[in-house]
Amino acid sequence: MEQVKLYDTTLRDGMGGHGMSLSVGEKLKVVQALDALGVHFVEAGFPSSNPKEAELFELLAEQEPEQATIAAFGMTRRRDRRAEDDEALAVLASCFAPVVCLVGKSWRLHVDKVIKVSAEENLAMIGDSLAFLREQGKRPVFDAEHFFDGYRDDPAYALECARAAADAGAENVTLCDTNGGSLPGFVAEATAAVIADLGGGAEVGIHTHNDAECAVANSLAAVEAGARLVQGCVNGYGERCGNANLTSILPALQLKMGFEVVSGEQLASLTATSHYLDELCNMTPNPDRAYVGRNAFAHKAGMHAAGVATDASTFEHLDPALVGNERDILASELSGKATIRSAAEHAGLELDDAAAARAVERLKEREHAGYHYEAAQASFALLLRREAGAYEPLFELEGFRVTTEKRRGGRVETEATIKVEVDGERYVEVAEGNGPVNALDKALRAAIGARHPHLADIELTNYKVRILDEAHGTGAVTRVLLDSTDGQHEWGTIGVSENIIEASWEALVDSLAYAFQPR
Amino acid sequence: MEQVKLYDTTLRDGMGGHGMSLSVGEKLKVVQALDALGVHFVEAGFPSSNPKEAELFELLAEQEPEQATIAAFGMTRRRDRRAEDDEALAVLASCFAPVVCLVGKSWRLHVDKVIKVSAEENLAMIGDSLAFLREQGKRPVFDAEHFFDGYRDDPAYALECARAAADAGAENVTLCDTNGGSLPGFVAEATAAVIADLGGGAEVGIHTHNDAECAVANSLAAVEAGARLVQGCVNGYGERCGNANLTSILPALQLKMGFEVVSGEQLASLTATSHYLDELCNMTPNPDRAYVGRNAFAHKAGMHAAGVATDASTFEHLDPALVGNERDILASELSGKATIRSAAEHAGLELDDAAAARAVERLKEREHAGYHYEAAQASFALLLRREAGAYEPLFELEGFRVTTEKRRGGRVETEATIKVEVDGERYVEVAEGNGPVNALDKALRAAIGARHPHLADIELTNYKVRILDEAHGTGAVTRVLLDSTDGQHEWGTIGVSENIIEASWEALVDSLAYAFQPR
Repeated sequence: MEQVKLYDTTLRDGMGGHGMSLSVGEKLKVVQALDALGVHFVEAGFPSSNPKEAELFELLAEQEPEQATIAAFGMTRRRDRRAEDDEALAVLASCFAPVVCLVGKSWRLHVDKVIKVSAEENLAMIGDSLAFLREQGKRPVFDAEHFFDGYRDDPAYALECARAAADAGAENVTLCDTNGGSLPGFVAEATAAVIADLGGGAEVGIHTHNDAECAVANSLAAVEAGARLVQGCVNGYGERCGNANLTSILPALQLKMGFEVVSGEQLASLTATSHYLDELCNMTPNPDRAYVGRNAFAHKAGMHAAGVATDASTFEHLDPALVGNERDILASELSGKATIRSAAEHAGLELDDAAAARAVERLKEREHAGYHYEAAQASFALLLRREAGAYEPLFELEGFRVTTEKRRGGRVETEATIKVEVDGERYVEVAEGNGPVNALDKALRAAIGARHPHLADIELTNYKVRILDEAHGTGAVTRVLLDSTDGQHEWGTIGVSENIIEASWEALVDSLAYAFQPR
Repeated sequence: MEQVKLYDTTLRDGMGGHGMSLSVGEKLKVVQALDALGVHFVEAGFPSSNPKEAELFELLAEQEPEQATIAAFGMTRRRDRRAEDDEALAVLASCFAPVVCLVGKSWRLHVDKVIKVSAEENLAMIGDSLAFLREQGKRPVFDAEHFFDGYRDDPAYALECARAAADAGAENVTLCDTNGGSLPGFVAEATAAVIADLGGGAEVGIHTHNDAECAVANSLAAVEAGARLVQGCVNGYGERCGNANLTSILPALQLKMGFEVVSGEQLASLTATSHYLDELCNMTPNPDRAYVGRNAFAHKAGMHAAGVATDASTFEHLDPALVGNERDILASELSGKATIRSAAEHAGLELDDAAAARAVERLKEREHAGYHYEAAQASFALLLRREAGAYEPLFELEGFRVTTEKRRGGRVETEATIKVEVDGERYVEVAEGNGPVNALDKALRAAIGARHPHLADIELTNYKVRILDEAHGTGAVTRVLLDSTDGQHEWGTIGVSENIIEASWEALVDSLAYAFQPR
């Protein structure tokens, strides 16, 4: 079966994304995760633009990935020197990476206005640089920057640039929609023109950005036109609106277009890999993301949910297991008793008709007050459990107090005191924390830890706060979402209150209570 | 010039989206905003599926939009009755909306397995229902549900369904990619087949979902194939991965494909409308969103930023002003003195070389500690101002204390005391609040309000908290982002600390200080 190769540029182009910042150790983990997913090329950056990158290349040279090939990235030679005298090209030639990707110009506007050389000199810069790397034993890739803008402006010159790279021995000429504004029809047309022009002299690749929300479609259109390498970033990281999202491109190529890109097992790790990379990059996974989002196979409206129960293929474009995702039936304002009962079943609970009706009512009240259980399935399970009469409280609260103090020039100090009853016994504890929720959490665990020692294994992994503006002016309400893990499972809980401490407290109690319920 | 019409279904299909919940008053505001943007049809739901929707239709009948046409939504007749005896069709026929959209089946799998009627009966259900509404004086639209899956499965039958609607008098037959899994090439092919088959008998529309991250491209591909109505939602709201995003489709149609969809002035309100709808729907605007996101025209890497300074067309796919957005040069780890100085200039500050160098250093330290100024331009401006020696502090803090208490069964109570000096005078104030940040905010304003009465106009509009896991295990750090407004401008500030109260305090002080600086 024909193959299309994936080329991930998270560690280079993706680092321009909003809020992206990775340590060397984290970058190494990114490489390992991409390797395990079956990504063919991992671009790791320029080998010595700063000490961090130099260290990364040293580490990668010691522990090369199992399947993936590391690519180094640089630019065509400077205009005022020969390729063999260009310091940056020398660094690239001497680094261990087998593949070197050089970006160069193919748009007359840039040749004239940005690098300010003649059209011929730019062609020479491309040819010289790629030929030099080829002689040095590298597998060179040419990234034709702004290729589609260039082709729109002066197709003959854009093609000359591609040909200069191919003639100089480029293994691949990748056409870049650097500004991200092109649409699929035009991308297909221009890609086909290059392939016809090169006549098999070099493989053609595609590199797109999402400024017109068409990066995925543009990449697929180029592949349909004959491109066989797709550059992008897992999760679509990158400057402005992001690079082409490999997380969406991979399943489309493999499940919808018939290419064999990675193994079935690797494809089934896509959701986990996407979430893991978000974690490494300190991003909140987008729940609406295609294929891998928590909502991607979530069915909310009653009609659809019923259809899925009959035959999933009626309402799903593919089996979520193929990409390692899961079907999810969501509770919501729109749902009725049937949905609630199916959710209860999923949670291993039996709800009779009256309990299901009560749960529907409770859900409506709660949603009206600002609760949204889509992101807090553990709190939703506890709500069902309460209605089913199967909720086991961990403790009875007598009261708590949290104080935060700051004096001129000093650090903020926080302490919490808590009074609870567990199994008829009263516990009074105080704890300091690096914040009020942390102090409360510690005091609560101290108070109930003697009776419930396994709670020590639970870690709070994410804490989100949102102020809700209710429609009818009852004042600002705070919604807290808390993610917790015991190392094996992860669960989300919610608290809603005018007071952030109370909302946090509610989410915290749910988090510990959920861990305590039989599952 | 040829026109393509937009049909927004936020109030119907969009309501299936994660966390979507709108009051009747908010829905009315959505209609008004879509009308002002120039959207041609606004689908408002089924006129009486519940009291909220009935009330909405009553209000809309009283105050119809200026340009937009309201569409009501329902289903083809039930299988066991004549169209004129179907209660739901009667409701649609009697409601004021001039356009009525009926969804019906065009995929054999659904005909057989979901509604369980014969292929002929389904065609009769379509034809009868549309003919009935036509007789009742409505302009009927037929939404051919799962059309693309149907066409893949049994093209002849899918075309028969479209033809049944057109023959019965449908003004428009909209082809729906209900599961969202189709790719642009196939969408174009199937759309062209329908248009050829109908031979001008009815206009063709397109309705796509984003499950393959191709909803925008699929809509544009259908338009290229001849569709002249695009259904979707502003901001791409909707179940699972969302409906087709009209916010991206509109500028592509108008600025890249040559259609005249709305006026230039309306197009220039796109960014503001997108953000306003997010606010109504209580969604955080996605900063990476195409065309309208805060990052859509943000330039971070040194090279790009320099290019933009030379000639914006070299690095931007269109002028951000056309869609009401702005160019933004972001400060970041990657930036050097030049970027910092250009940002300072933008903020009306002069930085000499030494101050710019200090600002770069300070920025690096801060970003390392977890600050991200992309979302907090006001805090960034204050950082520059401090380095320029132009920062005017509002007050000197002596100390504060915030206490939150809860007793069994009682509500949480919070109070803050604060001691500050303003212009050499000492103020001690206490305030209760519905949360610690609110109490601190009130106490602070009470303390400095006598000297700075204009601070009373500032409102905190959004408050976000994120726990950062720093790479080298220094413990959890909290990042607070605060958005504030004085009714005219909006600005973002940031605070970072292990303690959420301290981080909030820092963002709060920056928010007030920013309002106080000369601009």
